[in-house]
Amino acid sequence: MRIRGESYRSLFLADDGWTVAVIDQTRLPFAFELRHLRSAADAAEAIAGMVVRGAPLIGVTAAYGIALGMRADPTDAGLARVAEGLVRTRPTAVNLRWAVDRMISVLSAEPVSGRVGRAYAEAARIAEADVAACAAIGRHGLRLLQELRSAAGGRRLNVLTHCNAGWLACVDWGTALAPVYAAHEAGLPVHVYVDETRPRNQGASLTAFELAGHGIEHEVVVDNAGGHLMQHGRVDVCLVGSDRTTATGDVANKVGTYLKALAARDNGVPFYAALPSSTIDWSLRDGLREVPIEERSAREVSHVRGRSDDGQVLDVEVVNPGSRIVNPGFDVTPARLVTGLITERGVVEASEAGLRPLHPGHTGAST
Amino acid sequence: MRIRGESYRSLFLADDGWTVAVIDQTRLPFAFELRHLRSAADAAEAIAGMVVRGAPLIGVTAAYGIALGMRADPTDAGLARVAEGLVRTRPTAVNLRWAVDRMISVLSAEPVSGRVGRAYAEAARIAEADVAACAAIGRHGLRLLQELRSAAGGRRLNVLTHCNAGWLACVDWGTALAPVYAAHEAGLPVHVYVDETRPRNQGASLTAFELAGHGIEHEVVVDNAGGHLMQHGRVDVCLVGSDRTTATGDVANKVGTYLKALAARDNGVPFYAALPSSTIDWSLRDGLREVPIEERSAREVSHVRGRSDDGQVLDVEVVNPGSRIVNPGFDVTPARLVTGLITERGVVEASEAGLRPLHPGHTGAST
Repeated sequence: MRIRGESYRSLFLADDGWTVAVIDQTRLPFAFELRHLRSAADAAEAIAGMVVRGAPLIGVTAAYGIALGMRADPTDAGLARVAEGLVRTRPTAVNLRWAVDRMISVLSAEPVSGRVGRAYAEAARIAEADVAACAAIGRHGLRLLQELRSAAGGRRLNVLTHCNAGWLACVDWGTALAPVYAAHEAGLPVHVYVDETRPRNQGASLTAFELAGHGIEHEVVVDNAGGHLMQHGRVDVCLVGSDRTTATGDVANKVGTYLKALAARDNGVPFYAALPSSTIDWSLRDGLREVPIEERSAREVSHVRGRSDDGQVLDVEVVNPGSRIVNPGFDVTPARLVTGLITERGVVEASEAGLRPLHPGHTGAST
Repeated sequence: MRIRGESYRSLFLADDGWTVAVIDQTRLPFAFELRHLRSAADAAEAIAGMVVRGAPLIGVTAAYGIALGMRADPTDAGLARVAEGLVRTRPTAVNLRWAVDRMISVLSAEPVSGRVGRAYAEAARIAEADVAACAAIGRHGLRLLQELRSAAGGRRLNVLTHCNAGWLACVDWGTALAPVYAAHEAGLPVHVYVDETRPRNQGASLTAFELAGHGIEHEVVVDNAGGHLMQHGRVDVCLVGSDRTTATGDVANKVGTYLKALAARDNGVPFYAALPSSTIDWSLRDGLREVPIEERSAREVSHVRGRSDDGQVLDVEVVNPGSRIVNPGFDVTPARLVTGLITERGVVEASEAGLRPLHPGHTGAST
């Protein structure tokens, strides 16, 4: 996607052919800076320090981290050491573990002399698979937006999104924002209401930065405002991402998503979650009971990062000192509130029947 | 109510018998400071600069502002000038206009020589009427909480509140928080989830400060978290205030209130608005269509006030620079989502039939 007229991915190989360049997301939106990863330790640090974030991007960064590690020590011992250091950075990230396991399995079968080349090739394959999935989500979502626009009489389409499920969380395109980018490329006029997404403000900082960079009309709102906007017909469709989706179509996503789904239902606004089918957890049937919700640190709530008048980026305390804080990171939107799921293989109903054809073991016989 | 063991009202007469002391709410929660108002201009400045806020407190401050003005110039011309200066400070505040009109009508009938004494007496009467209404809301709400606690098997009761409808918004007790204070005094164990309430963070700063000062257990959450808490049975009742209530029971309150009402309904959690009957607008029947919603400044969203590590209180920018912002200040919760209204005259149904007995012209014949 574009930033000030230039095309970027959130991660790419530098001109030397081996250094891994990433956009430093801790500096956004106030500064746009690239960071160059030259070792597995650099990659681990970038993940741990949230220079890169978003499940797909974390996985890709870890895969390239293994490749960088192979340059230093391509032995089995080296591979094990590097893999362990990477997995330890964000222990709950499913994609991270998955990407590292895939690299280990591919490289273990490779003679030591061929491991560097094979590692770079495999990391690139993981990255391209993510880009292809996101692009496909964009195409399927675009058709949906085109239909909604016809229903809306051809005027500008108003999308509401929560958190950042854009290209900065992936490698390119994004998940929830992929249909928006696809619409923009196709000349369909689209405008996005961006929830600021407390406590970490990924909407106000990352999503707004993405959309501005790509020249897409948008307005930032506090998380409290979406219900009012929907009550007054100002939202045509909600598009959100998903951190984990149950086999029955329940969607676990950034905390606050459920509140927007309730408002969408109450006002007849379609509510879609966009997700690569790899985020479907086929072992879960009841999101509310079975998805563990991470309680995150109090400091995320008590302190806000921002830029002062003199240009310094710093944290300020915003909660009455001494008051206790609870900070659940995610919530679960029950399938009954989800109009549909936009996947790389098409738009499906948020239900067991809708999802079944996406199961890796599905033969097609039962549909 | 109490702050660090001492009893306070948000406004009171100083020991000299005429200076008006108020708590400087722009300095909370990081500093507790009193400001002394010695002229009508001081009062106007305190209202305009949000040293005092909350509809009831603004009205009482304006009434005392008139009294201070009478000390300097008790003539009709002086009264008119002072009244105009006060009304101009917050043009949309209904209580402000109402209190000033009442002072004008009472003082116009009084000889110039008696106006200072009469003005202080009338301002005190307005303040005491507010305290009495809030205390009555507390008593009626307490009975409700006692019933809920019996239903909950006698364990600690968990309340969720939005924004600040506490004693800092009034003179004492508050509206939504009055039942919580009454419960605490009555020895009923109560715990409050406090929505931080973006964009101005009145929950995290004022409500949390109030509850902490009074020794009431509470936890601050981001506005996004309430749905998740209710899904998991962690909230027994929602208590909010109301800026304006229609004759049919629709509740206009701080933006985001509607989202909590939806989550309450979806999870079988009772949802009450607490309000003095003076906030009922008998001329309105459809809150969604008829209550004008103020669009407030972008800066409230783009900048957050907080305390830096070195103790300085400052504003930091938190939204991608250049991105547009929409900032509706309130939303409307339809009566169908409101379990009941806690007024100074009892708990009533949020409906025309429920509210009718509170109408000033009601004779009692039709109930």
